Amino acid sequence: MFNFQYYNPVRIVFGKGAIKELSALVDKSSKVLLLYGGGSIKKNGVYDQIIEALQGVRLAEFSGIEPNPQYSTCMQAVELAKQERIDFLLAAGGGSVLDAVKFIAAAIKFPGKEPWDILSKGAKVSSAVPLGSVLTLPATGSEMNTNAVISRQETGQKLAMSSRYVYPVFSILDPETTYSLPERQVANGIVDAFVHVMEQYMTYDVNAPLQDRFAESILMTLVEQGHNVMKNPNDYETRANIMWAATMALNGLIAVGVPQDWTTHMIGHELTALFGIDHARTLAIVMPAVWQHQRAVKGPKLAQYARRVWGVQTKNDEQAIDAAISKTKKFFAGLNVPVRLSDEKLTPEQCRPAAEQLGKRNVSLGEHGAITAKEVMEILELAR
Amino acid sequence: MFNFQYYNPVRIVFGKGAIKELSALVDKSSKVLLLYGGGSIKKNGVYDQIIEALQGVRLAEFSGIEPNPQYSTCMQAVELAKQERIDFLLAAGGGSVLDAVKFIAAAIKFPGKEPWDILSKGAKVSSAVPLGSVLTLPATGSEMNTNAVISRQETGQKLAMSSRYVYPVFSILDPETTYSLPERQVANGIVDAFVHVMEQYMTYDVNAPLQDRFAESILMTLVEQGHNVMKNPNDYETRANIMWAATMALNGLIAVGVPQDWTTHMIGHELTALFGIDHARTLAIVMPAVWQHQRAVKGPKLAQYARRVWGVQTKNDEQAIDAAISKTKKFFAGLNVPVRLSDEKLTPEQCRPAAEQLGKRNVSLGEHGAITAKEVMEILELAR
Repeated sequence: MFNFQYYNPVRIVFGKGAIKELSALVDKSSKVLLLYGGGSIKKNGVYDQIIEALQGVRLAEFSGIEPNPQYSTCMQAVELAKQERIDFLLAAGGGSVLDAVKFIAAAIKFPGKEPWDILSKGAKVSSAVPLGSVLTLPATGSEMNTNAVISRQETGQKLAMSSRYVYPVFSILDPETTYSLPERQVANGIVDAFVHVMEQYMTYDVNAPLQDRFAESILMTLVEQGHNVMKNPNDYETRANIMWAATMALNGLIAVGVPQDWTTHMIGHELTALFGIDHARTLAIVMPAVWQHQRAVKGPKLAQYARRVWGVQTKNDEQAIDAAISKTKKFFAGLNVPVRLSDEKLTPEQCRPAAEQLGKRNVSLGEHGAITAKEVMEILELAR
Repeated sequence: MFNFQYYNPVRIVFGKGAIKELSALVDKSSKVLLLYGGGSIKKNGVYDQIIEALQGVRLAEFSGIEPNPQYSTCMQAVELAKQERIDFLLAAGGGSVLDAVKFIAAAIKFPGKEPWDILSKGAKVSSAVPLGSVLTLPATGSEMNTNAVISRQETGQKLAMSSRYVYPVFSILDPETTYSLPERQVANGIVDAFVHVMEQYMTYDVNAPLQDRFAESILMTLVEQGHNVMKNPNDYETRANIMWAATMALNGLIAVGVPQDWTTHMIGHELTALFGIDHARTLAIVMPAVWQHQRAVKGPKLAQYARRVWGVQTKNDEQAIDAAISKTKKFFAGLNVPVRLSDEKLTPEQCRPAAEQLGKRNVSLGEHGAITAKEVMEILELAR
């Protein structure tokens, strides 16, 4: 196990009716900016619950945060927050809204001229407006981590930031708010959380058995509950288990003391930036190809995964690795999520700009830094 | 799954050489009181590492905190801290030192006359002196939770408190500090952590599969690494895995949204208060008897535990339950820890005051509150 630090001060408020706890969580003297997306929270009752819980609190609103939130949209919210002298941001929505609000929180306090530098140049974040969240889509883990991913249409970029200053003070998770999600978003969320676990698990062994087993616990739960939700979308317990698993998938817990490999996400972000494919769908297409390409490096862990998560019995490691890949693809396909580029009517050749974009940034992906633009193109070829 | 809140802001600093991080973690302007036990930290180098890391910080010391820390000792430290105008407490040791320091932190700020009221009457804690810890004995989880257990020899009492104000600001876990522990303390620590998991897991099913699997992950890791440490006590990775598993066993994570049953601890505390038996040893004696007594209530989870943690194959639940109990006792015995009262030269009759003490406090133990003094006596009979 590597040396590590673990620190996660987010207060999780989980369960039926949890939104009413807002009245105890938000300081009555604050001026709050409520931020949300396209208005689904007005249809599913979440907006009304928030307004009721915040009676007596001075409130402004900013709506229209899009999936793959845009820098230009975020900067409009920054302007509004400054004008209104906001001192608390409340995000209501899924990972896109939460990511946007985290970036906005940092951008409001950013002393430089151009907050885009936080994303493009890793400019230092040294404070942020405090924020909280009401999560309505289990997927990204944004409700309990320091990460945000923001896109910029003009340049075709999709870039990430991380800062401890943007930890939500609290995140409210009421599984009932997820009933009204379209099936496609539910499935995407499960795949996203599943791949988050994999990026922290599917590397080489460092003798960290508890981290491995925690990761496998989340994977098994997502597989089991993913099947359940397709059959019984209105089962509360199923929704609750998916929601908690997605949060645990990316709150830092399973990452402690182990190597990580975010190759799938890095390639996936480029495909979303180029073609607008849903984030989770890019991951489902790319990850099996990464495993195939890296099977020499990831072999022992792939075999362990096949045996522990899928109950594969064979003693032959190569067969176990094949099973790991095929069972994972079958799981994704069972959620009606594409598992190859051709499912999205794309060829590897059309995706070459993704590899080139990563090449321009001189990235070295993989747990050993051995995946460059050339290998990315080979991976895209395997995802054909 | 039940509704829940989860909040744990403790910063964990984990790994080889981690004590030197103290210099970054402690505010240079503080006046720090370093508290420890019988002086083992002077023999194993931990004391020297702390002093070196805190060069330039004003420091006072209080030593002599005993196992099952005594109220009278804690109150001496409270006096010293007040005299010296201490504004940060640093605990160096195992769970007893940490528990004592948490209580001391609350007692210094307690507005009432008698801080014992915090333990005996649940008097409200509304502030505490900030504290940090350097953990040298993986066992109690005190390094990452809000709990403390304090004893009072005059009255034969051993009582618990819990307050969010006594969360350590940070806890430093260097597995190398555990090499010098006597084998008995290592074994006790593993049993203590194992039983902590059980008190949050071995109840009835509430459809919380991730919490179950996380609990089972910790149990499997403790079994595996417990065997390893008896054979290779100087293996760093083994020590690291035990240390991390013991922290995760009682930091609130596996308790979210599920019922708990602390019967074993409640009875165990009375046996320690009466006879001075090591805390973990009381647990190892009591828990199998609790399971036997409660096998109708805990049956399905006992069978799940047998199958998932011990790989028991039988489809017969009663056989699986028998295996759960016998394999657990064998595991404890393999760590040279007693599993029945007679191993400690005690009879159930001699232990009757334990049941009576619980009866006086009108406790209703068990996940359904159905275990009263009468059932406690029956359990002690089964532990003969």
